[in-house]
Amino acid sequence: MALKKKPVTGMKDILPKEMEIRNYVMNMIRETYGTFGFSSIETPCVEHIENLSSKQGGENEKLIFKILKRGEKLKLAEAEKESDLVDSGLRYDLTVPLSRYYSNNASQLPAPFKALQMGNVWRADRPQRGRFRQFMQCDIDILGESTYLAEIELVMATTTLLGKLDFHNFTIRINDRKILKAMAQYSGFPEESFDTVFIILDKMDKIGLEGVKKELEEKEFAEAAIAKFTGFLANVSNPQEISLESVKDILVDKAPAESLEYIMKSVNELCNGEFDVVFDLSLVRGQGYYTGTVFEVESIDFKGAIAGGGRYDNLIGKFLNQSIPAVGFSIGFERIVTILLDEGFTVPGSKEKIAYLVEKGVDSKVLGTVLQEAMAGRAAGQQILVAWMNKNKKFQKEQLIAEGYSEF
Amino acid sequence: MALKKKPVTGMKDILPKEMEIRNYVMNMIRETYGTFGFSSIETPCVEHIENLSSKQGGENEKLIFKILKRGEKLKLAEAEKESDLVDSGLRYDLTVPLSRYYSNNASQLPAPFKALQMGNVWRADRPQRGRFRQFMQCDIDILGESTYLAEIELVMATTTLLGKLDFHNFTIRINDRKILKAMAQYSGFPEESFDTVFIILDKMDKIGLEGVKKELEEKEFAEAAIAKFTGFLANVSNPQEISLESVKDILVDKAPAESLEYIMKSVNELCNGEFDVVFDLSLVRGQGYYTGTVFEVESIDFKGAIAGGGRYDNLIGKFLNQSIPAVGFSIGFERIVTILLDEGFTVPGSKEKIAYLVEKGVDSKVLGTVLQEAMAGRAAGQQILVAWMNKNKKFQKEQLIAEGYSEF
Repeated sequence: MALKKKPVTGMKDILPKEMEIRNYVMNMIRETYGTFGFSSIETPCVEHIENLSSKQGGENEKLIFKILKRGEKLKLAEAEKESDLVDSGLRYDLTVPLSRYYSNNASQLPAPFKALQMGNVWRADRPQRGRFRQFMQCDIDILGESTYLAEIELVMATTTLLGKLDFHNFTIRINDRKILKAMAQYSGFPEESFDTVFIILDKMDKIGLEGVKKELEEKEFAEAAIAKFTGFLANVSNPQEISLESVKDILVDKAPAESLEYIMKSVNELCNGEFDVVFDLSLVRGQGYYTGTVFEVESIDFKGAIAGGGRYDNLIGKFLNQSIPAVGFSIGFERIVTILLDEGFTVPGSKEKIAYLVEKGVDSKVLGTVLQEAMAGRAAGQQILVAWMNKNKKFQKEQLIAEGYSEF
Repeated sequence: MALKKKPVTGMKDILPKEMEIRNYVMNMIRETYGTFGFSSIETPCVEHIENLSSKQGGENEKLIFKILKRGEKLKLAEAEKESDLVDSGLRYDLTVPLSRYYSNNASQLPAPFKALQMGNVWRADRPQRGRFRQFMQCDIDILGESTYLAEIELVMATTTLLGKLDFHNFTIRINDRKILKAMAQYSGFPEESFDTVFIILDKMDKIGLEGVKKELEEKEFAEAAIAKFTGFLANVSNPQEISLESVKDILVDKAPAESLEYIMKSVNELCNGEFDVVFDLSLVRGQGYYTGTVFEVESIDFKGAIAGGGRYDNLIGKFLNQSIPAVGFSIGFERIVTILLDEGFTVPGSKEKIAYLVEKGVDSKVLGTVLQEAMAGRAAGQQILVAWMNKNKKFQKEQLIAEGYSEF
């Protein structure tokens, strides 16, 4: 078989320049969340196919890279369907593995458990520019904490990280799925269609109130429900204009709104005006598993979300058949790296880079002395390259200067 | 399908304590090799099945986790053999991907190219204690440098790293495949059986000279060849007793021995007596692709090899149909982590860990003040945990103390 030079479709080789930024961001993430008491953990990249197909992964379950059974377990002649051939797959997110991890190791973990995961995930998505089939996910979760303390700590840790990475111009949008549910219930939509309603609401900033109304009608919901729902939105052009107070007025159970108020107030006090926290009734966040607060960090400089998450109290405990409160943030690691790379970001505190060029055929004592000096410089923290001098010394030096080396 | 709590067979969840050590070792590797001018790179975990089956991987090619084709490309009904079903697999080493990477990106890389790779590899080995089906490999390679300078720099970088990780009592064993070849040739073994002869020689410290002779006889090699080969070894109980000088005497081409002499002399001068470099005629290193120097770092404290590698000038260029000189070291990352973990190693320079326990139902102003203080401490580099006080405060404090927290 012929060898193939390019990586497999949709995956990429990472060049030294990007790796430097990736490692810098990863270390910054570990360091920052570390100061908030988060611990790094890791799960295998390969997961049981049963766990990956448990309907926790939503649409991602259609995108699994599946792994063939091995040895005697692979019975090709008898296999009738795909599932007869596979026993595992590459994880498509870090949430399903976290649930399994927690159920497997809870007795050895502190409670509440503050977990930091950075790892590759794989999705056999249609390849497109800037979207890869292998990419790094970075998830930060607090398991076992049912109150707003978890939300406040997560938001503060994540915004502290962004500040350290020199992202300053951003807004936190926040909502609560319980408020969305109450609104849908109040309007009279049937419970099983809430997610559909939310997804339509999510588009209001793009399609406007008329668009929302039209899409709800297309789904053939009861006219009265549509009227009540859109009536509430009628006075605003953007759901961000709807205040938490006005929503609170119509809630029977005011606890979710009070919790949101508390989170927003606390974060605003702690952030010294460095960013805004705004209530956004249209913030839904795609995943069906969210049960409470949802939030998103929107960069104003770089248009779009760079982190997001929410509370999902019914998922982590699924393996244990019990409810484990959980709140998590997912950081757009690849997006952040791409922005830094595009901006020509230089990793701060880089080492002094010195190249020693040695003439070929030089006396072994001379090379010995150069190597001794190089070792001393390295011990002192310099980055020292020892290389033979090329015939075209000028070109070689230009190359080395381009790589950031000086002194020859 | 029922959910499974345990990781897939042969793979493991990594707990916070081990992750701390892993991250520390990884950062130390990046930092140390960084001072020697090595750049981090990364390839996708998934590789083309053609590349993984190109006979560069030796026995590992039997251990591939293969990935099922997706969508329309998977034709289950028409599939006659395994290879009809798969298009890719998980990499079993970092060397095959490095060859592909270099051929794909050489124009954007410096020459010579000093590469550092740390990444997971997968092998569907029989599961056994301490051996996992997913494990981290750490490879350091110099591509495009044909002289001993590459070997010297690699040995010095690797031993510097080991010193920083507090491994001090070790020996470097070194040999050259060209010397082994010359010996086999001199004895009269046919060229195609050299690898078999080397693998038997490799066992001499375990099976003795008689054992070597017996195994060579079992392979039905010519008596004269066996006699000449074992005759050379007859006066020693251990091939490490054979001096490089005595081997050099019988070599027609003395260049490999002179290169080894140079490397050993240089390293000995540079290492200030911190470790020994010894010639070991029986050092073979399993992989068939080695073409020159081979070396192994043997820990005396922790019995066995903790790093090893060699020169393989014919492999990297395979994708380019040209010869690219290459020397590499593979560090026993998992072994080093296991040793540090077993020794109760504490990551140096850890942050001060402070826990603030807050009574539930406390006034929002009080919590606000605690959070303010926590943020200030974190900004100053402390690790601060804010948590609600449990009913069983005593137990909670004991737990926190066990995790290294103080002040409550």
